[in-house]
Amino acid sequence: MADPVTVAVDANGADLGPAEVGAGAALAARRGTRVLLFGPAAEIGPVPEGVTAIDAPVSVAKAPEPAAAVRSTPEASIVRAARAVGAGEADALVSGGSTGAAIAAGLFHVKRARGVHRPALAVVLPAPGGRVLMLDVGANVEVRPEHLVQFAFIGAAFARAVLGVGAPRVALLSNGEERARGTRGVVAAHAAIAARAAEVEGVAFVGNVEGTDVTAGVADVIVTDGFTGNVALKLMEGVSQSILGAIREVAGASVRARAGGLLMRPALRAFRDGIDPEASGGAYMLGLRRVGVVAHGRFGRRGFAEAIGVAERAVRGRAVERTQEDLEAAGALRRAPSGAAASVHPSS
Amino acid sequence: MADPVTVAVDANGADLGPAEVGAGAALAARRGTRVLLFGPAAEIGPVPEGVTAIDAPVSVAKAPEPAAAVRSTPEASIVRAARAVGAGEADALVSGGSTGAAIAAGLFHVKRARGVHRPALAVVLPAPGGRVLMLDVGANVEVRPEHLVQFAFIGAAFARAVLGVGAPRVALLSNGEERARGTRGVVAAHAAIAARAAEVEGVAFVGNVEGTDVTAGVADVIVTDGFTGNVALKLMEGVSQSILGAIREVAGASVRARAGGLLMRPALRAFRDGIDPEASGGAYMLGLRRVGVVAHGRFGRRGFAEAIGVAERAVRGRAVERTQEDLEAAGALRRAPSGAAASVHPSS
Repeated sequence: MADPVTVAVDANGADLGPAEVGAGAALAARRGTRVLLFGPAAEIGPVPEGVTAIDAPVSVAKAPEPAAAVRSTPEASIVRAARAVGAGEADALVSGGSTGAAIAAGLFHVKRARGVHRPALAVVLPAPGGRVLMLDVGANVEVRPEHLVQFAFIGAAFARAVLGVGAPRVALLSNGEERARGTRGVVAAHAAIAARAAEVEGVAFVGNVEGTDVTAGVADVIVTDGFTGNVALKLMEGVSQSILGAIREVAGASVRARAGGLLMRPALRAFRDGIDPEASGGAYMLGLRRVGVVAHGRFGRRGFAEAIGVAERAVRGRAVERTQEDLEAAGALRRAPSGAAASVHPSS
Repeated sequence: MADPVTVAVDANGADLGPAEVGAGAALAARRGTRVLLFGPAAEIGPVPEGVTAIDAPVSVAKAPEPAAAVRSTPEASIVRAARAVGAGEADALVSGGSTGAAIAAGLFHVKRARGVHRPALAVVLPAPGGRVLMLDVGANVEVRPEHLVQFAFIGAAFARAVLGVGAPRVALLSNGEERARGTRGVVAAHAAIAARAAEVEGVAFVGNVEGTDVTAGVADVIVTDGFTGNVALKLMEGVSQSILGAIREVAGASVRARAGGLLMRPALRAFRDGIDPEASGGAYMLGLRRVGVVAHGRFGRRGFAEAIGVAERAVRGRAVERTQEDLEAAGALRRAPSGAAASVHPSS
């Protein structure tokens, strides 16, 4: 294996506390990853081998205004972790705290990759016979067509670099399959992605998909704005919970059904594990100069170890460099200097 | 019971053919509803008692541009049915064909209710301990805040008049619960609904809800734009199918699990019937001078009978009149004369 990869990890914000994040870091270190762990030394306890602990007790994970808190709290653990990445001391960022704080810290201190309008938040969803990467799921509530165009290539590059998809099929989420369906922004993005995808070897634009198709396995990357993507992601969580809850209720409704439920339990558990978000490490911040992974606050050590593992695979798979190459090939890099727009964005 | 209610029904467009719609009309007629059935007489066959059949063989249900087809095809069955409603020959409209054609025919011939900016398409979703009405799910892909405000009161009036909800809790779908979360339009709508709901007796605005809350039973009416609503609705269908399919697969994975699946089958069937869209009659066109119901194309006679039943209940429950009263009380009626906006809208 090549040189070890170094991942900066914010230990604050996890529901199970900094020590659990430390245990995840220890698991990752045992697999050969170097971890810089930013958090309260007193709570983390003995530092595992392969982990460098930096005492950073201040947390902004519960701040009501994450971007403002990140700006006004340079000593916050997420800020210090992001600065370490920005300064080249680490190759990738992992946070288990507030998504908003992680995005703000990433924007301010890791910074946007050259030519990228807006970093996006991506998640992996289960689909028959594989997985699908959906972005944006919440970083950008309002987008312009050129943002959606970039999301398409940013997502495709990540799918190739990290998810092992050779030639990703990219789709645009809309309210109908025809190219004229959708908001004005979606319709414009459709035309632009179709034209530009033809320039990028190994990326296939399959057009619009509807909500029914998200989990149908018809695309590897699904592009949408952060408002729709956030609603869609949380709706999937809610519907899954409702259905599994209803089935649990059904399984207790009669002696027959209860016996059936008991017999099905091992198989149902296997199914539930298949849709476990811990297995995918959380959400990915893409479009920064380095990859960031936002672990879910409720993750345990296994989930944090996987988040660090995804960050390492992104570095080894050259996710950021491939994104640049694909955006360049697509002619989708932002040409204008980062004047007004750049200074406005982080505060939004 | 009061005077019989007359419902105009378009028999074209249903997957099972006009005769199946006719059978649904016969079921409704047996319960006392008068039905005007517009469709191909040759295919409908013998006319059941209580049903008046009008030979209207021309269908635009499969037209690629529904609004244009409705405009250029005055003899189409959906156009003739909508005209019958507009002329006062029937009290409500039911269609099993294309949603787009039904919306266009409703706009042109039933016409918007006084003071309504944009009619919306609403559906009933299952939720623990009840049902939730979500609108818009596709009639208006782009909306202004004042449209969302009207959807809130249009939905609440329908919930009271037809769904038996005494004091509906109305929520706005967003990417976070805080009032500042969402697109600029959603944030503006939040403030306006909060201010206006206080003026309407029996309507409680519970603020923003996230995707996870849609099926959680925290609101009776969920308001969103037609793009997000359409994606959300179809995503729910897709996720439900995926999960039930995966469970079916799991249930066949081992002898133990298969035995368990067999024992659970009656209970699972009861659960599936609970989320059956036929039971709610389809989607509702609200904000017109009369109520319209768009049955799903795949419905059988039972679904069409229920669609006609919902239309009848909407008439008896004074859904349209209550909507006017609530919009008036909320100060949310469109004040401006229906000049440019009115003539522009139907073509969009």
